[in-house]
Amino acid sequence: VAELNETHDPQLRSWIESANAPECDFPVQNLPFGVFCSAGTGAPRGGVAIGNCVLDLHALREMGVFTGVAAGAAAAAIGPTLNDLMQQPPSSVSALRAQLSQLLRADGAVSERVRSRVSEFLVPRDSVQMQLPAAIGGYTDFSCSYTHMAGMRNGEPARIFFQFPIGYHGRTSSIRPSGFPVTRPCGQWVRDTPAEVQFGPEPRLDFELEFAAFIGSGNELGESLSVAQAAERLFGYCLLNDWSARGIQMLEMGGLGPFLGKSFVTTISPWVITNEAMAPFRVARPQRREVEPPVPAHLDAPEDEKAGGMSIELSAHLQTPGMRAAGLPPERIVSTNLKSLYWTFAQMLAQQTSNGCNVQPGDLIASGTVSGPEPQGRACLAEINQRGSRPLDLPDGLKRVWLEDGDELTITGRAVRAGYVSIGFGECTGRVTSARGSPGNAPHLRTNPG
Amino acid sequence: VAELNETHDPQLRSWIESANAPECDFPVQNLPFGVFCSAGTGAPRGGVAIGNCVLDLHALREMGVFTGVAAGAAAAAIGPTLNDLMQQPPSSVSALRAQLSQLLRADGAVSERVRSRVSEFLVPRDSVQMQLPAAIGGYTDFSCSYTHMAGMRNGEPARIFFQFPIGYHGRTSSIRPSGFPVTRPCGQWVRDTPAEVQFGPEPRLDFELEFAAFIGSGNELGESLSVAQAAERLFGYCLLNDWSARGIQMLEMGGLGPFLGKSFVTTISPWVITNEAMAPFRVARPQRREVEPPVPAHLDAPEDEKAGGMSIELSAHLQTPGMRAAGLPPERIVSTNLKSLYWTFAQMLAQQTSNGCNVQPGDLIASGTVSGPEPQGRACLAEINQRGSRPLDLPDGLKRVWLEDGDELTITGRAVRAGYVSIGFGECTGRVTSARGSPGNAPHLRTNPG
Repeated sequence: VAELNETHDPQLRSWIESANAPECDFPVQNLPFGVFCSAGTGAPRGGVAIGNCVLDLHALREMGVFTGVAAGAAAAAIGPTLNDLMQQPPSSVSALRAQLSQLLRADGAVSERVRSRVSEFLVPRDSVQMQLPAAIGGYTDFSCSYTHMAGMRNGEPARIFFQFPIGYHGRTSSIRPSGFPVTRPCGQWVRDTPAEVQFGPEPRLDFELEFAAFIGSGNELGESLSVAQAAERLFGYCLLNDWSARGIQMLEMGGLGPFLGKSFVTTISPWVITNEAMAPFRVARPQRREVEPPVPAHLDAPEDEKAGGMSIELSAHLQTPGMRAAGLPPERIVSTNLKSLYWTFAQMLAQQTSNGCNVQPGDLIASGTVSGPEPQGRACLAEINQRGSRPLDLPDGLKRVWLEDGDELTITGRAVRAGYVSIGFGECTGRVTSARGSPGNAPHLRTNPG
Repeated sequence: VAELNETHDPQLRSWIESANAPECDFPVQNLPFGVFCSAGTGAPRGGVAIGNCVLDLHALREMGVFTGVAAGAAAAAIGPTLNDLMQQPPSSVSALRAQLSQLLRADGAVSERVRSRVSEFLVPRDSVQMQLPAAIGGYTDFSCSYTHMAGMRNGEPARIFFQFPIGYHGRTSSIRPSGFPVTRPCGQWVRDTPAEVQFGPEPRLDFELEFAAFIGSGNELGESLSVAQAAERLFGYCLLNDWSARGIQMLEMGGLGPFLGKSFVTTISPWVITNEAMAPFRVARPQRREVEPPVPAHLDAPEDEKAGGMSIELSAHLQTPGMRAAGLPPERIVSTNLKSLYWTFAQMLAQQTSNGCNVQPGDLIASGTVSGPEPQGRACLAEINQRGSRPLDLPDGLKRVWLEDGDELTITGRAVRAGYVSIGFGECTGRVTSARGSPGNAPHLRTNPG
């Protein structure tokens, strides 16, 4: 777990005024890394979000402002992916953050001439196309929310939930950055009346509000990481929407677990909030109840118990086509907090490697649906609608059981702690588009008498 | 499905005598691609197996012997991975095979001078280290054997087995070429007496004899492939051992499917037998019984029904340390045939993309355990030992319920058809080594009272 340092100082302000607005996701205390394309800069390159701008790291590095180990980290951060940056020693990334902080804060030890040059490398954030921040070689989705597991089962989670973080391998090829359209998948699902399997556009399209970590340096095949070691290999974090086709998934759960019900697309927010930036927001992991088994030895570590959790307010907002047409803003339908997660990211990574499995820089591990005990804490429609029995009421007078074509779902996150400047994660958004060949999907739609 | 052409001619012989031996896996009719390292050639490069040699494609291409589209395919085959070759049009790969055939056959249209130069680029196969043939971005393991599913359940498979090929995403980072040691994984499993979950070296280590396909050209996210399209995207095939930790897996099957019970290592044979080389060995897929649902429309195609299967004899051989010490050869413990597979590889790939999921060149899809109705057809120890109740008898007088440290398991395969020269797949082998920190694994071994 990274330590507090001067980059977290709540007194810091930036000479880029938009970074000082209280609601800004990217104040000078954040400094997240990403990969962007813009008309001016062409090919994908690394950048840092500050206020309503992106700072072009490629150009900044060519200017020669970085020194020492920070220069090495900057060289690894120019793009087109951040995998090289992710495997730098945490101390080098920390040095880069410290020098970026000096460059961007109002009281930084930087001459007017340098600041003037730096300002030339700022690109308006709303003018760039964000890319995936890394080439993601492996993606694991865990299921670490007690409330979600209980909600999906309508009862206490299975005992293994308490024994280790349950997970499965997700599909890496269909992970896309925020904004990518979500095409309603086709697949096989059970029609209720009469009960039979048919192939066609998925009627029960859902979202899952999740949170994810990018792996920094990896391990060798055969080498297990302790929880303490794992904590040092977490490079940073993003928001994730694990779009779910519930009809397809339901059939698959009788087989070998989630597969086509999840692999049609997974959306992540494009900015990687560094592990160091999260230092002020660390919290203890939740207390276990008496009835639960103790933490297994290979997943236990004192530091993780004290500070393995993170306090991050997470929200999901829905805007239907009707709301858009009426000029209504997106409606918040989920409000939860990451701190309720039963297992920490260090525990997830330790578990992933406990059998000797190797992970690599840029691998992604996700939390599973972050449902919490708060009002509006249910973080997917399956929980909200209680298996279709309780539709969601929306401001346009319509109801939603599942996502309809044209619906846009946006996940946001803010790390908050009294006495510190809160930092945000940007947006993880996607709009549902109709299934290929719809309406009707005639070529595919055929009842399977099985 | 590739067509028969002159490269399949059973009359062909090679001027490399070892390729003409009846038991040789790599006659001139085979011409599989792989990536090798040798003391002489240094960095990994592409090669073709012929008899007991590897033909160095990098050197051969520099010589300028390839013409037309074959030259383009050869440029994509020089290494260090074959992903570029895999995404070439099948006609280009076919042209490369045809020119390789001319270069290597006894009656080829090649001058003595050229043949003499070619012979300089032959490296003894037993002197090279084979690498993974591709950077594998995605790996899916299906479960397509009726006999395996019935055997693992002690009864008829669940109904979804007949409705679509069941699959899950495997771990790509831990796929290794034949010969890589298999470290016994640690993990959580249920000790029988008293029944409790503990963390420690897996006692129920198993193999699974599988067969796998490398994807050639991929599809765009959102684009589904028909069975006919999918058949054209299968570049080639290899053997695969899906090493399985049954204790770990058993706990996980109550969660989200196979995960740590499989991800500690997966072994593949290093030579990719091209789809074209398999043309003589195509067979109809198995007839469905009256009680089974018909093939769903999106997985049905006349050509696939007639020729989607392949007749390949598959074997597994076990050699224990005791057998090695006594000079006893490996004992064949499995004898099965791929033709019994319920779903074809074209159906698996069509299913994988049926929800719009994209696949990429070099992705791997595996069949699941290829158990068949033959005597010795059970293709993993869990089926052979009938849940531990029927140990395997071995020539050294010992019995095996599960794999012990030092055991070596080798999978081989031969495609056979009367009137054609049979071709082989090389070896997929791995020797079990003791768990890290064994004996005892004291730091980890602790009972979890849950």
